[in-house]
Amino acid sequence: MQNETLTLNTHRLISGLIAQGVHQFVISPGSRSTPVALLIAERVQQQPALRLFVDVDERSAAFFALGMAKTQQVPVALVCTSGTAAAEYLPALAEARLLHIPLIVLTTDRPLELTNIGAPQAIDQTELYGKQVKQSQRLELQQPGTTNADFIAFQSQRSVLTAMALPRGPIQLNLPLRKPLLPDLGVTPPQIKTVTVPQATVALAPTALTELAGQLQGKRVLLIAGPEEDSAYRATLLALSQKCHWPLLADSLANLRGRGAVISNFDLLFQARTTLPAALQPDVIIRFGSTPVSAPLMTWLEQQTVPLYLVGAQRQMADYSRATTHVLAADEQLLLAELLAVMPAQDATYLANWQQYAQRLQTKLTVPTELNEVTSVQVLDRLLPATSRLFISNSMPIRDVEDFYSGQAVRELYCNRGANGIDGVVSTAAGMATLGGANYLLIGDLALFHDMNGLMMLRRYQLPLTIVVINNNGGGIFSFLPQAAATDYFEDLFGTPQALDLAQVAALYQRSYQKVTTLVEFEQALQMQVQFIEVISQRADNLQLHRRLVSCLKQELSGDD
Amino acid sequence: MQNETLTLNTHRLISGLIAQGVHQFVISPGSRSTPVALLIAERVQQQPALRLFVDVDERSAAFFALGMAKTQQVPVALVCTSGTAAAEYLPALAEARLLHIPLIVLTTDRPLELTNIGAPQAIDQTELYGKQVKQSQRLELQQPGTTNADFIAFQSQRSVLTAMALPRGPIQLNLPLRKPLLPDLGVTPPQIKTVTVPQATVALAPTALTELAGQLQGKRVLLIAGPEEDSAYRATLLALSQKCHWPLLADSLANLRGRGAVISNFDLLFQARTTLPAALQPDVIIRFGSTPVSAPLMTWLEQQTVPLYLVGAQRQMADYSRATTHVLAADEQLLLAELLAVMPAQDATYLANWQQYAQRLQTKLTVPTELNEVTSVQVLDRLLPATSRLFISNSMPIRDVEDFYSGQAVRELYCNRGANGIDGVVSTAAGMATLGGANYLLIGDLALFHDMNGLMMLRRYQLPLTIVVINNNGGGIFSFLPQAAATDYFEDLFGTPQALDLAQVAALYQRSYQKVTTLVEFEQALQMQVQFIEVISQRADNLQLHRRLVSCLKQELSGDD
Repeated sequence: MQNETLTLNTHRLISGLIAQGVHQFVISPGSRSTPVALLIAERVQQQPALRLFVDVDERSAAFFALGMAKTQQVPVALVCTSGTAAAEYLPALAEARLLHIPLIVLTTDRPLELTNIGAPQAIDQTELYGKQVKQSQRLELQQPGTTNADFIAFQSQRSVLTAMALPRGPIQLNLPLRKPLLPDLGVTPPQIKTVTVPQATVALAPTALTELAGQLQGKRVLLIAGPEEDSAYRATLLALSQKCHWPLLADSLANLRGRGAVISNFDLLFQARTTLPAALQPDVIIRFGSTPVSAPLMTWLEQQTVPLYLVGAQRQMADYSRATTHVLAADEQLLLAELLAVMPAQDATYLANWQQYAQRLQTKLTVPTELNEVTSVQVLDRLLPATSRLFISNSMPIRDVEDFYSGQAVRELYCNRGANGIDGVVSTAAGMATLGGANYLLIGDLALFHDMNGLMMLRRYQLPLTIVVINNNGGGIFSFLPQAAATDYFEDLFGTPQALDLAQVAALYQRSYQKVTTLVEFEQALQMQVQFIEVISQRADNLQLHRRLVSCLKQELSGDD
Repeated sequence: MQNETLTLNTHRLISGLIAQGVHQFVISPGSRSTPVALLIAERVQQQPALRLFVDVDERSAAFFALGMAKTQQVPVALVCTSGTAAAEYLPALAEARLLHIPLIVLTTDRPLELTNIGAPQAIDQTELYGKQVKQSQRLELQQPGTTNADFIAFQSQRSVLTAMALPRGPIQLNLPLRKPLLPDLGVTPPQIKTVTVPQATVALAPTALTELAGQLQGKRVLLIAGPEEDSAYRATLLALSQKCHWPLLADSLANLRGRGAVISNFDLLFQARTTLPAALQPDVIIRFGSTPVSAPLMTWLEQQTVPLYLVGAQRQMADYSRATTHVLAADEQLLLAELLAVMPAQDATYLANWQQYAQRLQTKLTVPTELNEVTSVQVLDRLLPATSRLFISNSMPIRDVEDFYSGQAVRELYCNRGANGIDGVVSTAAGMATLGGANYLLIGDLALFHDMNGLMMLRRYQLPLTIVVINNNGGGIFSFLPQAAATDYFEDLFGTPQALDLAQVAALYQRSYQKVTTLVEFEQALQMQVQFIEVISQRADNLQLHRRLVSCLKQELSGDD
């Protein structure tokens, strides 16, 4: 072998990652990363269970990997060259850190003697990601000796396990490399000693569970399900809600709407009034999942003095309403199954009150029959196939989905609700689409522009993703905020119209395209499986539409005590 | 006033920045940044000397500001909202840190009570940029009291002075803000106490200068001018070189080629042979500017044992050849003027030797008369107007410019040679084009793809920039590296063809476009001021072209002692 130590140690690194469940790699081209990239490519060719994607734009690559990891609940590895390439990962890592997504970031680096000394493409990569990763480590792939070889095999496995340990999160392995960088191809990877980690779960102590069940008995319990990508406990949560007749306020991203005793339109309720009628007021609140999309719900929670249980080992008291009084840092599925077993059926009145109220609110939601930002969501709700996936952009789309999506079929909804950025949305959705099947993206024109490079991954890998762009030529959300009063500066600073010709964008990335202006056209375009659908909206009209709806709800609901 | 403390303190912040020379602002839209953005916009409207640009993509915005700061040698301020928006700045900051560009980054943030507690759009922004900024500070714009008001006025000025102090670099001001965020408009900014900082320079002690002059007397002195954006000392360096008959090896980015005793084609010389003929060997080397583009020059330097003086207060021994033996941490212009005064004229033989050799090398550079990556550079060299600016992408373009650009007119050449990334190139060039006049960008198709969003700034602000895209459909540089031997994986991992239709890209951003395939067509397109010129190249042909040239030079020059 020409480059034996590097070749074998890189194999050990890769084998360690694979052994602990990394089966997908997203690589951006570069020179310093050559040994890692080439030996991963070779391994992927040999092992059909592995997948490799190449993305020229590292920012896009990181969001693409994020999309894979968050929708598949598995660790995904990223590989890049040294310098600003590595810096490009930061936005996606900030998102992964907050939403607990396990990304394994392999940044290749210049060796010490080429760092901070004027050498090209060498930034200081130690602690490059600061607090945006769980852990950062260095591996010396060119250091000879069995101790180092064993360390690499051990540490690469450990890094995946660290990323997967609750709360999950991204980790960095920084790999300084000297020339020559070309590894030997066709070498059988050396055996590594693998670490076996049987699944472990955290359960409440039996006495704590008994105490909890006692505290819930006979109470008006309100369940709140926040965004949740993990499907493990959904059915049990629904079963508990139904058995105990406890209303379940389900965030659009909880992926529970349309099922069981779920209440969907609570955000509109809390927009219309800041307190609940007495008949809906709970004695106890139990929260699952991450921070709900509904800001009015969080504001309402801030005022509550009843016991609030925050459930889940990942949650770490991340409750900006500060309403939490009890933390149940246990595995959700285990806790729910135990509660389901011990809790007897409860009085159904409280649930009935909620359901009647939700029904009343629903009847007031008479939306015009023309195509707009609200009815677009309703069309998607009605027409998207069951088991399809819908990725939703931050800013206006997720708010409209939260208010107007009722889950008319069981689908998976996703959104980057860690840091709530409008960056990387297309790439994250493209990462989701690597799962195959029917995939949709609902996005505004500004977020689409921000991450147009993500469209290249769709084209390159022929990924199935239908994109619905709400084109209101700018930042629609700002019209809802006090900033709209600063009329002299509004369009320039907040509206920021880009006048992007979406037909040309679609052509550039070879997506079939249609602009739709009526509900019928929109429905037909979806049914015809047009890949890129442009829905025209006017920001001013959209503001009025939303104001009318909330005003109507306020009128209807404000009188109740 | 509705929001008095916030309004007045934000004015103090802005006044402090302006007082110390920040006259240009690049803002990305967002809600948290509202008070800063609105009051900057108001100030810009009132003071014609100030300029404001709005860029939706924060990554692009940061490179755009970098382009302004590096070409104007002034501090430029960036403003963004909280969350991943702030993370998007990192690649440009890494570049600014290494090339000593003064960027003032105003990141708005959530207040403490919304950080790390599950609140939306709130990442941990403390130390977000780690070692990629010189300094990171927090200002509390909503804290009442005169002490805080004075502190904000003082600290904002201090942050600019810190960024401008040698070695220059980016600094972060993190601004946590609570709602309500809307400032009062139409308020007269409060007076602030400004700090006056007369210019100071670092000079060698008189004894050290005398000693230096003595050591240079009668020696064969080789001057090396690396990349330099500051024009302050160019004329004096040329004058010294001419008076003392010291050959001056000028990097393409030193902006000295074509003038005085400058040797341009030394990179090709060091590609052809690893040692110098005895007649060219120096007794002393003096280096100016940052790391030269020429890697073969740096490799040659590694082997030298003669005294090497590294000049400049920004350089900090950043010499990866480790050839430096003396650091002259003084102001270049001051040092050169003093040397020019004290040094008598020297023997002209050494310079003549270099000039003869360079001339001989030049005659061997018979390049075919067809359009290719080499002749493209030669055409630009011949045709671009005097006093125009040429921004050059990293990877192949800067290498070809280094080898084939001889400075047939006096122009300013720029490149992101801090971290040498291919990201942000279009945006940086767009920032350069805010200067007006005639501006050009030479870029490959991959770098263009990476930063296509930068084209939006050209369109939005009608910036004068002619873009020449060398389209070899992928990463041309990799064909020159050992990776090319890994043929099974090469195209997928390194070649990475994107098959981008550049005519469509030009149409999307409303640039006039022409594809050229001959030298005549290219020359005509330049003369017709086509905004977006596509030069078709084949990676394999380009490799052969370069190999033939170097092989021919090797044959010619290898025999010399």
